[in-house]
Amino acid sequence: MSDGLNMKEIKRPERATADTVAKMAGVSRVAVSRAFNPHASLKKEKRDLILKISKDVGYTPDMAARALVTRRSHLVGVIVPDVCSPWESQEIDALTTALQTEGFATLLFKTRTDQSMDERLLTYMKGFNLDSIIAFAENIGPETLANALDRAVPIYVTYPQNGVSPIASGSTAVFDRLDVNQQTGIGQAVALMQAYGCTKFAYLGGAKTSLANIERERALRQILKDRGLPDPVIIAGDFTYETALTSTLDLFKMGEGVDGIFSANDVGAFGVIDALRFKLGLRIPEDVKVVGFDDIAQAGWLSYNLTTVKIDLDDRVRALVRLILRRLKNPTAPAMVETLETRLIVRGTVGS
Amino acid sequence: MSDGLNMKEIKRPERATADTVAKMAGVSRVAVSRAFNPHASLKKEKRDLILKISKDVGYTPDMAARALVTRRSHLVGVIVPDVCSPWESQEIDALTTALQTEGFATLLFKTRTDQSMDERLLTYMKGFNLDSIIAFAENIGPETLANALDRAVPIYVTYPQNGVSPIASGSTAVFDRLDVNQQTGIGQAVALMQAYGCTKFAYLGGAKTSLANIERERALRQILKDRGLPDPVIIAGDFTYETALTSTLDLFKMGEGVDGIFSANDVGAFGVIDALRFKLGLRIPEDVKVVGFDDIAQAGWLSYNLTTVKIDLDDRVRALVRLILRRLKNPTAPAMVETLETRLIVRGTVGS
Repeated sequence: MSDGLNMKEIKRPERATADTVAKMAGVSRVAVSRAFNPHASLKKEKRDLILKISKDVGYTPDMAARALVTRRSHLVGVIVPDVCSPWESQEIDALTTALQTEGFATLLFKTRTDQSMDERLLTYMKGFNLDSIIAFAENIGPETLANALDRAVPIYVTYPQNGVSPIASGSTAVFDRLDVNQQTGIGQAVALMQAYGCTKFAYLGGAKTSLANIERERALRQILKDRGLPDPVIIAGDFTYETALTSTLDLFKMGEGVDGIFSANDVGAFGVIDALRFKLGLRIPEDVKVVGFDDIAQAGWLSYNLTTVKIDLDDRVRALVRLILRRLKNPTAPAMVETLETRLIVRGTVGS
Repeated sequence: MSDGLNMKEIKRPERATADTVAKMAGVSRVAVSRAFNPHASLKKEKRDLILKISKDVGYTPDMAARALVTRRSHLVGVIVPDVCSPWESQEIDALTTALQTEGFATLLFKTRTDQSMDERLLTYMKGFNLDSIIAFAENIGPETLANALDRAVPIYVTYPQNGVSPIASGSTAVFDRLDVNQQTGIGQAVALMQAYGCTKFAYLGGAKTSLANIERERALRQILKDRGLPDPVIIAGDFTYETALTSTLDLFKMGEGVDGIFSANDVGAFGVIDALRFKLGLRIPEDVKVVGFDDIAQAGWLSYNLTTVKIDLDDRVRALVRLILRRLKNPTAPAMVETLETRLIVRGTVGS
């Protein structure tokens, strides 16, 4: 399939060395090394001069060689689902931007369809000498992950129940934590739905293995109970639009229907909304109130205008970057924890 | 912020060597190396045995050391916009899955907000010794990119005009190409819009620097002209929902309005649809017909049910993977090209 158009040789700049640059800049070899490490302190003028001369002579430190010496790969791994939904995509995007600013690149490792990790992938992961990795307990446990890492201490995202993280104890492997308090925002959602007259709730679940989903359901049940409201009807979901649509149809056509639906995520809520409007001829919020979870960008689109529970993405990314940097500064420190709150974003699907 | 819970030491497996594994498996050192290289041929039973023993003794080849020897990093770079829209996110997701199957990991490099590349990032990129990189001419030219790569021959995604790629010639640097023929699907869209009665068209543009957008507008103008239809009204867009919404409002409130709107991407089309329905009280398709571009997953959501131009994502990813693998097999071959067609996906926003 070659078109024979670009037959010329690539012009390669000469491979200058760190010594060349040191000599030309009138600095030590160590200073040259420090100039390329954003975390090493060096006078600004010195760094600028070294970088300028390096550019002129075409010198770049070889990351692979540096990695063997400094044992820093500048790579942060993220374990992501086999198919990423808008929420994961948003998170990967924001995290990549923040990490790039700090001098790291993001490496994505995908799970299998059953959410477990392929063992060959873990072997392969170890060879990358990651500086850090963001993981989820339903995909891989801390001990297994520790075996797949060389030096890095992983960060687990967890979903505390009443303030207690389910994976904080019982592990021999050290890991840092990002705890997400989903309960707060869910509590605000139920309060609003009740205030607007909901008496019969349904919970459209997410993927069964998702710990975030398991905790969302538990929190919803507890909050309804605390408010003297009946248990929710549980309808089957998997975080996708299509399953949400069919489950909602089943609920109203084969079941008794409800007046309030809490969806495990926004994408599912869109399926609920479309089922109610286009297939069942029901109005939102007048006939049925709908709440989602995530506050992805699409939640604000007028066709959905979804009231939903938000985990602030900027806060989340900043917390993850803090954990990564603090851990790299203190490799042997005890486990570190950052906590995120959730809150309700009120739009038009509950009431006005 | 440590909670003092995980105070135990990490248990590290002994760092066994390739020689250890070779001895235990009764094979040569070379065979051990081949076992970890998915592209090297080795009897399945031999490979399985070596991998099993390696796992038992905790041996993994150090990617950094291997990279220096084999000069293969198993990393594929992708240049992506500073903020990724659903289209880029879908593509990154599908590409990561396909590359992981082939033994590569995806490294994302983000542009600046003006779509250019930060020079320090390019310096940093070179250190990663990428096996391949997927790039776009509006972000970085082939010569600049070649200077930021060690061995890799990049792949440029291009948008031919009437079958001729605008960046095929005039460059001293070798690069492979993925040519996307946007014209075909756009032609089908205009045909359908005209068949359903459109006489006055608008084009909601994408980001001004986007070569994909520039070619979409050119193709639309040419197709309208060929069909004896008037030039399109151009309304300002940038691939986002919000700008599409306000531009559509301006078009109908301050301008004369049109009966057919072609949006540079699906996300913009959603903004157009919501402006027409929720702000202008117009019906789609009865009053205004709307067509998008991309066929992202959300285009099929019932609230939008968008007729749109599709670049088949699976085809695109397979073509990119083919280019990557063929180039790695043939480092000095002349430039290689894969071509993708587009086609119209008919849903409900043009007519029934």
